[in-house]
Amino acid sequence: MTLHSTFPSDRLAIGIDLGGTQVKGALVDRESGEILRTALLPTRDGEFEDGKPVFAMQVAGIIAELETGGARLPAGLAAPGLAAPHGRCITWMPGRMRGLEGFDWPRFLQRGIRVINDAQAALLGEVWTGAAKGCRDVFMVTLGTGVGGAVLSGGRLLTGASGRGGHLGHICVDVNAPRDVFHTPGSLEAMLGNATLRQRTGGRFASTLELVQAAQSGDAEAMLEWRESVRRLAAALASLVNVLDPEVIILGGGIATGAGDALMRPLEQFMDDYEWRPGGLRVPLKMASAGEWAGALGAVNGLRLAV
Amino acid sequence: MTLHSTFPSDRLAIGIDLGGTQVKGALVDRESGEILRTALLPTRDGEFEDGKPVFAMQVAGIIAELETGGARLPAGLAAPGLAAPHGRCITWMPGRMRGLEGFDWPRFLQRGIRVINDAQAALLGEVWTGAAKGCRDVFMVTLGTGVGGAVLSGGRLLTGASGRGGHLGHICVDVNAPRDVFHTPGSLEAMLGNATLRQRTGGRFASTLELVQAAQSGDAEAMLEWRESVRRLAAALASLVNVLDPEVIILGGGIATGAGDALMRPLEQFMDDYEWRPGGLRVPLKMASAGEWAGALGAVNGLRLAV
Repeated sequence: MTLHSTFPSDRLAIGIDLGGTQVKGALVDRESGEILRTALLPTRDGEFEDGKPVFAMQVAGIIAELETGGARLPAGLAAPGLAAPHGRCITWMPGRMRGLEGFDWPRFLQRGIRVINDAQAALLGEVWTGAAKGCRDVFMVTLGTGVGGAVLSGGRLLTGASGRGGHLGHICVDVNAPRDVFHTPGSLEAMLGNATLRQRTGGRFASTLELVQAAQSGDAEAMLEWRESVRRLAAALASLVNVLDPEVIILGGGIATGAGDALMRPLEQFMDDYEWRPGGLRVPLKMASAGEWAGALGAVNGLRLAV
Repeated sequence: MTLHSTFPSDRLAIGIDLGGTQVKGALVDRESGEILRTALLPTRDGEFEDGKPVFAMQVAGIIAELETGGARLPAGLAAPGLAAPHGRCITWMPGRMRGLEGFDWPRFLQRGIRVINDAQAALLGEVWTGAAKGCRDVFMVTLGTGVGGAVLSGGRLLTGASGRGGHLGHICVDVNAPRDVFHTPGSLEAMLGNATLRQRTGGRFASTLELVQAAQSGDAEAMLEWRESVRRLAAALASLVNVLDPEVIILGGGIATGAGDALMRPLEQFMDDYEWRPGGLRVPLKMASAGEWAGALGAVNGLRLAV
């Protein structure tokens, strides 16, 4: 391949983003973060062959396709769930992606590959080529069906002792509200995510984007609930600023990109009320910008940061 | 001094803990954390000579006393407020310790000295010789007039971009409650600390320890308010576990040491309700144990970790 003549193999690496819907792979220039080639398959979740999950064979296939028989390249894999500190497997992922929990990737693939959590990988993508480019202290919150997150602290991924660090959706904003799936009372996820929206609006809205559209068209009930959702988010972000002291906060996920200014404008107003700004310091809010390959990129960036 | 013959000077360092009440200094064995000699003065806060705060001269005097004219030793200084990333000064400390903000310690003392925040120093003391000995991922919450905190992440102090990292008292637990001094709505500090207790109990109790005593003697109103205080603390700690994923949580400060089991027993029960425990993992709660010299010790440990 001409790629291999232009980019010597010691500059190349492979990033895999294993999701519930798609398996994405990217051949990446480790110095610049440039994506040279990609490969993509719909995830065959729930299927098994010889007792092994088919998605593992899909990962092997994508790696082989990206390496095209050339030198064996460094590789990183982003996947949902808690990644083991040693980076060989996902240790905890109940409910979906059956077969992923405890699956030893280096053993199966017969090669070195480092496993990291997908939300952490997305942040590492943003830090490399996206909205947090060059930052050493930054956190990202992804607003979707659930609310996820990840933290970079002093230039290193905050994984914590067991890999659970950065679960920013599961912080309490209302101690008097019911507990969420992780037992956190009144968590950001429960107070904002899509999963609880029907219940929060008496069944009127099925998705937050519907809610935002109704709010924008002047529906009073929708305006109130959306305003309250954003206010809760601001309280959570202000709390996290006091704990983590980032240079920038990155917002991602379907709710953030779908709502756009309808989120950012009221959120910035509430941050004016809630954020501690010693010496006038204000933490900027930015939308994620590394795009749909952020996870694959971040899996490679994780290899760089681990060195 | 015999100390200098037993401990070669390259094993010695000086830690200073500059507080609003006392200036404490300790001569410390940098390898073991053993305290070899101490010195202590009541802080002359609010006094100035030649335009310089008198407490700075007290610090200089204590250092001279501990060095006893021997070799110039490495030194660390713990003080309230936000420490600059370069470690030469406290950048932000409004309201008390006038003259501390922006005071350039290496310039004034004409020697190398590294300034860190006092709560962060207390944690580094616990990590060195106290309840978190040897831990790499741990956070500490100090419960007193205010609620303070500090975080060690991956073996490094989490200072954040501007030094504000680890302000764990200023996380929201009730988005519908009033904002605290840092603008955080319903913060842990406002929902638990001594400063707001009169207001929370309709003037009945002046200190949390009075409240705890009344609760222990069966006063129904006191029992209810104390239980609620502990529940809010549990919600905050469970949130922080999901963000920081520590090996252990350290509790310190006057409320924690004064209440003892009256805090720990209900707190552990609420943590059973609120803590996310993937794979059964439970984060232990421990009382701070490094003692009154923890800050001075931590100022020295900060020098070791910065190397």
